[in-house]
Amino acid sequence: MQFDRIIKNGTIVTASDVYRADIGIVDGRITALAGDLNDSDDIVDATGLYVMPGGIDSHVHIAQPSGDGIVMADDFETGTRSAAMGGNTSIISFCMQEKGDSLRESLKVYHAKADGECHIDVAFHLIITDPTPAVLGQELPALVEDGYTSIKVFMTYDGLRLRDDEILDTLESARRTGALVMVHCENEDAIRFLIGQHEANGDLAAKYHATTRPIAAEREATHRALSLAEIVDTPIVIVHVSNREAMEEIERARMRGSKVVGETCPQYLMLTADDLDQTEMEGAKFVCSPPPRDKASQDACWDGIERGVFDLFSSDHCPFRFDDPAGKLNEKGNKSFRWIPNGIPGVATRLPILFSEGVQKGRIDLCRFVAITATNHAKLYGMYPQKGTIAIGSDADLALWDPAKTVTITNDLLAQGADYTPYEGLKVSGWPVHVMVRGKTIVDEGKLTGEKGFGAYVPRNRSSMMASHKPAD
Amino acid sequence: MQFDRIIKNGTIVTASDVYRADIGIVDGRITALAGDLNDSDDIVDATGLYVMPGGIDSHVHIAQPSGDGIVMADDFETGTRSAAMGGNTSIISFCMQEKGDSLRESLKVYHAKADGECHIDVAFHLIITDPTPAVLGQELPALVEDGYTSIKVFMTYDGLRLRDDEILDTLESARRTGALVMVHCENEDAIRFLIGQHEANGDLAAKYHATTRPIAAEREATHRALSLAEIVDTPIVIVHVSNREAMEEIERARMRGSKVVGETCPQYLMLTADDLDQTEMEGAKFVCSPPPRDKASQDACWDGIERGVFDLFSSDHCPFRFDDPAGKLNEKGNKSFRWIPNGIPGVATRLPILFSEGVQKGRIDLCRFVAITATNHAKLYGMYPQKGTIAIGSDADLALWDPAKTVTITNDLLAQGADYTPYEGLKVSGWPVHVMVRGKTIVDEGKLTGEKGFGAYVPRNRSSMMASHKPAD
Amino acid sequence: MQFDRIIKNGTIVTASDVYRADIGIVDGRITALAGDLNDSDDIVDATGLYVMPGGIDSHVHIAQPSGDGIVMADDFETGTRSAAMGGNTSIISFCMQEKGDSLRESLKVYHAKADGECHIDVAFHLIITDPTPAVLGQELPALVEDGYTSIKVFMTYDGLRLRDDEILDTLESARRTGALVMVHCENEDAIRFLIGQHEANGDLAAKYHATTRPIAAEREATHRALSLAEIVDTPIVIVHVSNREAMEEIERARMRGSKVVGETCPQYLMLTADDLDQTEMEGAKFVCSPPPRDKASQDACWDGIERGVFDLFSSDHCPFRFDDPAGKLNEKGNKSFRWIPNGIPGVATRLPILFSEGVQKGRIDLCRFVAITATNHAKLYGMYPQKGTIAIGSDADLALWDPAKTVTITNDLLAQGADYTPYEGLKVSGWPVHVMVRGKTIVDEGKLTGEKGFGAYVPRNRSSMMASHKPAD
Amino acid sequence: MQFDRIIKNGTIVTASDVYRADIGIVDGRITALAGDLNDSDDIVDATGLYVMPGGIDSHVHIAQPSGDGIVMADDFETGTRSAAMGGNTSIISFCMQEKGDSLRESLKVYHAKADGECHIDVAFHLIITDPTPAVLGQELPALVEDGYTSIKVFMTYDGLRLRDDEILDTLESARRTGALVMVHCENEDAIRFLIGQHEANGDLAAKYHATTRPIAAEREATHRALSLAEIVDTPIVIVHVSNREAMEEIERARMRGSKVVGETCPQYLMLTADDLDQTEMEGAKFVCSPPPRDKASQDACWDGIERGVFDLFSSDHCPFRFDDPAGKLNEKGNKSFRWIPNGIPGVATRLPILFSEGVQKGRIDLCRFVAITATNHAKLYGMYPQKGTIAIGSDADLALWDPAKTVTITNDLLAQGADYTPYEGLKVSGWPVHVMVRGKTIVDEGKLTGEKGFGAYVPRNRSSMMASHKPAD
Repeated sequence: MQFDRIIKNGTIVTASDVYRADIGIVDGRITALAGDLNDSDDIVDATGLYVMPGGIDSHVHIAQPSGDGIVMADDFETGTRSAAMGGNTSIISFCMQEKGDSLRESLKVYHAKADGECHIDVAFHLIITDPTPAVLGQELPALVEDGYTSIKVFMTYDGLRLRDDEILDTLESARRTGALVMVHCENEDAIRFLIGQHEANGDLAAKYHATTRPIAAEREATHRALSLAEIVDTPIVIVHVSNREAMEEIERARMRGSKVVGETCPQYLMLTADDLDQTEMEGAKFVCSPPPRDKASQDACWDGIERGVFDLFSSDHCPFRFDDPAGKLNEKGNKSFRWIPNGIPGVATRLPILFSEGVQKGRIDLCRFVAITATNHAKLYGMYPQKGTIAIGSDADLALWDPAKTVTITNDLLAQGADYTPYEGLKVSGWPVHVMVRGKTIVDEGKLTGEKGFGAYVPRNRSSMMASHKPAD
Repeated sequence: MQFDRIIKNGTIVTASDVYRADIGIVDGRITALAGDLNDSDDIVDATGLYVMPGGIDSHVHIAQPSGDGIVMADDFETGTRSAAMGGNTSIISFCMQEKGDSLRESLKVYHAKADGECHIDVAFHLIITDPTPAVLGQELPALVEDGYTSIKVFMTYDGLRLRDDEILDTLESARRTGALVMVHCENEDAIRFLIGQHEANGDLAAKYHATTRPIAAEREATHRALSLAEIVDTPIVIVHVSNREAMEEIERARMRGSKVVGETCPQYLMLTADDLDQTEMEGAKFVCSPPPRDKASQDACWDGIERGVFDLFSSDHCPFRFDDPAGKLNEKGNKSFRWIPNGIPGVATRLPILFSEGVQKGRIDLCRFVAITATNHAKLYGMYPQKGTIAIGSDADLALWDPAKTVTITNDLLAQGADYTPYEGLKVSGWPVHVMVRGKTIVDEGKLTGEKGFGAYVPRNRSSMMASHKPAD
Repeated sequence: MQFDRIIKNGTIVTASDVYRADIGIVDGRITALAGDLNDSDDIVDATGLYVMPGGIDSHVHIAQPSGDGIVMADDFETGTRSAAMGGNTSIISFCMQEKGDSLRESLKVYHAKADGECHIDVAFHLIITDPTPAVLGQELPALVEDGYTSIKVFMTYDGLRLRDDEILDTLESARRTGALVMVHCENEDAIRFLIGQHEANGDLAAKYHATTRPIAAEREATHRALSLAEIVDTPIVIVHVSNREAMEEIERARMRGSKVVGETCPQYLMLTADDLDQTEMEGAKFVCSPPPRDKASQDACWDGIERGVFDLFSSDHCPFRFDDPAGKLNEKGNKSFRWIPNGIPGVATRLPILFSEGVQKGRIDLCRFVAITATNHAKLYGMYPQKGTIAIGSDADLALWDPAKTVTITNDLLAQGADYTPYEGLKVSGWPVHVMVRGKTIVDEGKLTGEKGFGAYVPRNRSSMMASHKPAD
Repeated sequence: MQFDRIIKNGTIVTASDVYRADIGIVDGRITALAGDLNDSDDIVDATGLYVMPGGIDSHVHIAQPSGDGIVMADDFETGTRSAAMGGNTSIISFCMQEKGDSLRESLKVYHAKADGECHIDVAFHLIITDPTPAVLGQELPALVEDGYTSIKVFMTYDGLRLRDDEILDTLESARRTGALVMVHCENEDAIRFLIGQHEANGDLAAKYHATTRPIAAEREATHRALSLAEIVDTPIVIVHVSNREAMEEIERARMRGSKVVGETCPQYLMLTADDLDQTEMEGAKFVCSPPPRDKASQDACWDGIERGVFDLFSSDHCPFRFDDPAGKLNEKGNKSFRWIPNGIPGVATRLPILFSEGVQKGRIDLCRFVAITATNHAKLYGMYPQKGTIAIGSDADLALWDPAKTVTITNDLLAQGADYTPYEGLKVSGWPVHVMVRGKTIVDEGKLTGEKGFGAYVPRNRSSMMASHKPAD
C-alpha cells in the first residue's frame, strides 16, 4: 500500500477509542489504519500527540447582517482562518433568510460570501424568518434534498422571532421533509417587558443585558419549544443552554419520550453575569444571548456535559469588534445595553478551553471530547461518516493535539476579525499544533499555512436523529 | 342573649374544626356559638346533620355571550337557583369585557343581568380581553378599590386569548393594584394547529375536541403563565387543572418560590375523554376545556386535592343546552367538534360529588372539604371573614348536610337551565338538605324556598394572597 | 349564661380562622364564643392580644437517662415550667423503654417522675428499644387501648437503634393496633464509619459532630424508613427534618401515595453547622442530631413549612447543662465531640421564634402558626378536640399573644433547667404574655403564676392519620 | 503487509463508528484496518455482515455453589460454549468467597474450575461475603494489583448479604485500592418480612417470589447503596436494575455528583411477573432476583437504555435446571417459592434479544448496541483496549452478525447446561453467525467449531471509572 501521506506514531482518539496507530491517507481520505505504515513520501510525525478528528463547530455566525450599520467582525476568510487556528476542520454557518426573500435567494448570497474564501470546509443551516407556505411547502423540501438538512428558528429578537403558530408550521414541514430544527429559546415578550422596566428606571449599563434576559425567560421558551416539538412529534436541538433550569427541561422532555439534542457553549462554562458588570461599557465585550449566568449555572453546564444532557459543544461564534462604531460600542450601544450587538467571538477558543478545563482537569475523557466537539456534530447534522471521525473512508480532517503544550490565550493568537477575545489571558493546557483538512496541512506548529479557497462547501445528508425518528403518519 | 334564629344540635364543621355546638344568628350574622342556645322563636333542628359554611363557587359562567347565536343555558336566576340546590350560598361569576368596551361598561351590563335575579350572593371577576393602557392603568386600579379584586385572562379561545406581552402587562397592573389573576392555560396556537390537522383529515366527531387539546398544550401554557408571573413577581391562580403534568408545573413553581394557587373541578375527577366518544354527537355533552383526560389524570387530580396542590375546588359551570340550536348541537356544532360550545353545567353537582367521592370514601376529611369548597375561596378572593366560615361575625351562610341521605342525580333535581347534566344517574351519598343565606332559608328538605332577588352583590377585599405578597419595589 | 371566666376583647385565632370574639369558660372548658360576653366574675382582658390555642409540643425529652452519668437538665417540674413560659399548655414527652424492661414498667417509671410535678398537661410517646414479640404482640395493643397511641423508633444511637427487621415488626404491630410511629432517621453505621475516620485523623472538636452526621446519612435513613413503612403500609412521622434532601424524600413518598407527616424544629431554621465551630468546645452548646446544616438547609426548612411539607413544628427539647460534669462538657465530652451529649433545650423558645421569624416576617399567617404548633399536634397524636383548638367543648388551653411586645431572649427568662439557651440574645417580636391551662392562668404578664401539680396526664385517642388510614387486610 | 487472517468486505461497527473496511489479523490481534486487504491465506468473507466486537458479558454466574444440594446448570465448559453461541468472546464470572475462606483460596477454586474448560476468554469478579480486616486490608489490595479489579457485594440473600457497616468498609477498601464495586440491591429484611407474611397466609406458589421482592425493596436498597458510596466517595455499579424507581435513584445520584454505573438485563425487557404466575410451578422457570416486574417497568428499562442511564447490558446468567432435584424443582422448591433457586439462564440470548428488539426495532443504533454489550464492559472492568473494540492492537475478538437472519430461539440452539430457556419460541431478527476469539473461529454458521481450553484467563487493569475518580484524600 502506497499513501499520499502517513501520520505516524500518534495516538488516535475517536468518540469511543484511544489507540496507537499510523494513518494512511490517499486522495484526502483515510485508507488505512495500522500499527506501522511507511510507504509514503510525506510522513507527518505525531509522536507524543493525540490525533483527533478535526473539530466541527456547528454553531457559527459569519458575515451575517445585524442591521443599523452593525457589521460582523468575521467574513468567511477570517472566520474559517480563526476556526482552523483553534483545531477545527469544518464549520456549519448560518444562512439567514431576509423577510420576503426566498431561501434559495438567501443561500445564493451566503454561497457568494463563502466561495473561494474558506480555509476549512463549510456547510449552512437555514435560518427561517419568514415561514410562508411557499417556503415551508415547496422550498424547504427541495433544499433538504439538496443537502441543506437543518434549520434554525428564533424565539427572540425583533424581526427574527417566530410566533408559536409559525414555529408549529416550521416544525411540521421539517418533520415531513426530514430536516432537523435548532431553536434559540428565550421569551421575547418577557425580555421586552423587562427592557421596558429597566429603561423606565434609567438602568442602561451593559450589565442590564443579563437582568433583562433572566433564566425564567430561557426556561419558559425552552419548555415551550419542547412542547411544540412534542405536539408535532419531531426532534429538535435546544441550542446554547446556559443554566440548570433550561437543562432540566431537556431532561424532562426526554423522560416524556421526546427526541431532543442539547447544546452548550464555552461562555456558559467560563463567564458569568459579573463579567458584564464593568466600568465604562467594558462589559459589552461579554454581551451575548442567553447571557452568562453565575457559578451555579457553570456547574450545571459542566454537569450536563458529564451526564450526557449536552451532546453538542459549540461556540455560538458571533463576533463584533469592540472599539468600533460598527461594533459593540456603536453610537447607541455606547449609551444603552439594548443596542449592544449580541454575540461574542469564540470559534478559535472552543476546543482549547474544553480540552484544558474538561479533559486535563479530569471532567471528561478524550473520547467524550471528540464526541461532543466533532463526531456528534457530524452525525446530528448529516456529515457523517465523511466528517467527524477517524475511520476508513472518512476525510482526513485531523487535528494533532499536544497535551503538554501550555498557551496563554491572546487575541493576536486567534487570527480572527474581532479586536478582542473574552478569554484574553486565560492559560490553557493542550493545543492543536497541527491541523489538516482532507489530508492537507492548514495549520502547522500553531501557524496558518493553508490558503483561503481550499475550504469547500459540504452538502449534507439527513440528521441521524431524523433517520431514527419515524413520524407517526 | 336573644337570637333571630338558632341552629340547634348540629355538628359544626370549619376548615379546621369539627365540634358539637349551637349557632345563634342575629341580623343575618353569627353572633354566638355555644353548647346550648335556646333564646329564639326560630330554631332549626340540625340533629344528625353537619352544619358547614355554604359553598362558594368561585368559577362560574352565567349569562355570558358566546357568539354565533349561542346562548348560555343559565341566567342569574336559574344559575343561582341551581347553585343553591347544590349547597352554595355565594358564587363569583365572570364579567367579560367585550373588546373595545371599558371594564366599567362591562360591569354595568353584568350588574344589570344580576340585579334582582339572584337567589344567593354574587360577586364578579373581571375577564380582561382588551388590556389597553387605559384599562390597565386607570380602570383596573379604581375597580380594585371598588371591590372587584380579581381578574381572569385566557391563553386560548379566539377573541379572548391574550398574547404574552398582554399577559405581562396585565400581571404587572394586577401586581401594582393588588388584584389576583386567574389564568386559563392552554396554548391556542397548538390547538389551532391540531384542529387544522384534524379538519384536513376529516376528523370532526365530538371526541376530537379532546385530541386537539392535548395535555402538552395545557402543560405548556401552565408553565408559561407561571413563568410570566415569576418574571412579574405576582401570585396567580391556575384554574381547572386537568392532569398530572400541569399539576406538577404548579408544584415546580412553588419549589422555585412562586406563590401559586391551583384549582381543579369535578369533571376532572369524574369524566374522561372516553365520555366524548359516543355515537351521534352525544359526546358533545361532555365538551369542555381543558377536556377530561383519562383514569391516570383523575387519580392525579385526587392526589392533588389530597396533597394540597389544589386549594380550590370549583365547578367551572359553563352551561349550554344540548338539544338546542343555540346550544351544543347548533347547526355547525352538529357537524364538527370545533363548533360545539365549550363548557358543561356543574354548579349544583360540585359539592355533592366531592362530599360523596371525597369525604365518604375517605380521601379527604370534612375540614378539607370545607376548606377547598368554601373557606379558601373566601380568603383567596377577598370575601373572608364575611363569607366562607362559621365564626362570630360572619354571615350565617350555612349548608346543613345529611351524610346519611343517598341521592341519584338527575337533571330535574338540579333546577338549572341546561337540559342535561353530565352526571345523570350518578348515585351520591350525602346531600345539602337545608341551605341558608345570611340566616334566611333558601333551600329546605332539598326544595327551593327562597325567592330571587334575595341574593345580593358582594364587594370584595383584596385576596389574602395579595396581602401576604410583597412586591419587590 | 354564666361563666367561670371570660376572655374578653381578644382576637381569636384557630388553624383556619381569625375573628373578634369573647370566650366563655365553664369547668375549664370553652362553652361559648360570642361577640359580647359579660356574665362572669373573672374577666381577662385580651384587648390587643391574639387568643390562640396553647402550644402543644409533641417532641420533648424530659428526665430521660442518657448513660455515663449524664443527666438531663430538666425534670418534669422545670421542663413543664419552661414550656409554659414559652406559651405551651401541653407537651408529649418520651417514655423510653430500657432494654429488657416491659413497656408497662417503663411507663410506671415516667409516670412516677411526672406525677405531681407538672405545670401543664402531659402525655407520653413510647420509645421502643426492645421490640420483642411480647412487647409488640401483647403490650403494645393493650397500651394503645389505654391511650398511649404513638411510638418512636431510632435508626441511630448505639443501644437505641433498631435494625430494619425490628423496624418492620414494630411498624406492623403499630399498623394492627392503630399506633402512629415516629422515626428518627439517621444511618448509624454511616455515622460510626465517619466517626472512625475522624478519630483516626485526630479530628475531635465539637464541629466534627456535624461532619460525621452528613445530610446523606439523614436522607438515606429517611428514604429507608419511608420504604419500610410503604412495605408495611402504615403511616409514619419523620421527625426533625434538617435539610432539603430529607424533605424531598417525604414529598416523593407522598407522591407514591404514602401517608407521611413531616416535622421540623427551630434549630433547623436558626442555627447552622458554623455554630458548632467555636473555640474551646463552646460549640458543644449546639450539638444535636441531626446537626444544624447551612443557610440553604434553613431556606429549605422554611420552604417546607410554607409549602405544607411540614405539618408539625416541634422543639425536640433535649436539654443538657453546658458547664457541668453531668452535661455537655463531661470529662469525655470535653475531649471529643463523640461524647458530647446530643440535644439542646428549646421548649420555651419554639413558639416565640416561629411567631417572630415566621408570622411577623410574613412567611406564614396566623392560622398556619396555630396549625403547626398546636392543632396538628392534637389531631395527629389523638388529643383533638380536647386540645389544640378554640371551639365549644375544648379545654380552655389558651395563650394570649401580644404581637407588639419585643423580647430579647436570655436564658434567665426561660425558667428552664439548662444553664444556657442556643438563642441567647436573639430579639423576637411578639410574646405569649398570658397562658392558661383548662381555664386556669399559669403565666401572667410573662411571669409564672401556676403551681406544679396542676398539669395532668392526658390519655389519648388514636391519631387522625390512623383513623383515615385503612390497612389493606 | 501479510496477515494471518483477513476479514473481508464486512461493515465494521464500534461504539462510535460504522464503516466499510477489511480487518487484518496477526497473532490474534488486529494489526490493520483498510479499504482493501488481500495478503493472507485465510480470508473470511463478511459480505453483508456486521463485524462487531464480540460480546462481553460481565455478569455471569457459573459453577457457583448454591447450598442445599442445588447445582448450577453450567460449568465453565457449557457456560462459555453457550456464551460463544450467543456472540460472546469474553465473560466475567463471579468468584464467591465462602465465609471463613480467604479470597486467594476462593480464587484457587474458581481458577481450577475454569482452567482448560473455557471456549472463550474469562475473568473473575470477587464476591466478598466475609469482609474481615485481613480480607479488606491485605488481600484485596494485593489482588487488585494482580488483576482482580472488581468486587461484588450483596444486600440480600442469607449468608451473602453484608450489613451497612460491612458495605462501608468494603467500599472504603475498594476506594483505596482502586477496585470497582458492584452491588446487588434488595433489602433483605423487607423481603424476609414479606416472606414471613406470605408463609403465614399459606401463599407459596412461584408467583409469590415476585410479591415478596417488591420494587420498594429494590428502590430502598439502591438508594442506600448509592448513599453509602456517596459517603465513602467511590464509584459503584448498580447491577440488574428492574424498574423505573430504582433507575431514578441512579439518576438522582448522578445529579448529586456521584459516579454510578447502571446495568440492566434482558429479563427486565422481556419478562414480567405474570410469567411467574403459571400452573404447576412452571413459573419457577422465571424466578430470578430482582423479579421481572410489569410492562411499565419494561418500558422504563428500555427508556434507561435509550437515555444512557444504563451503560451496561448483561445477562445475569445464573442457570438452574428446571426438572431436576438439584434444580428449580428440588424437593423444597416444589412446595414453596422460597426454595426455588434464584436465577435464569441467559448468556446465549442476551445479544440476539437486544439486537432484535433494540437495533432492529429502531430503539438503539448499532453503535449503542456495541457500547452497552461490549465496549463499556471492557472499559469499566479494565479489559480495554485489549477487549471490547475493533482497533489496531486489540484482540481480534469478533462477532459477525447477519442482520437478515431470522431465528426462533429454542433451548437446543443454545448449547447450554440448563434444560430450558425462558425465551423458548421467541423469534429474533439478526444472529451472530460467526464468532472468533483472538482471531480463531469458535462458532461458524451458528455451529460450535472451537474446542474447550482455547479460552484463557484475562487479568484486568483498573476500571476506567476508578482511573477518572480521584478520592478526596
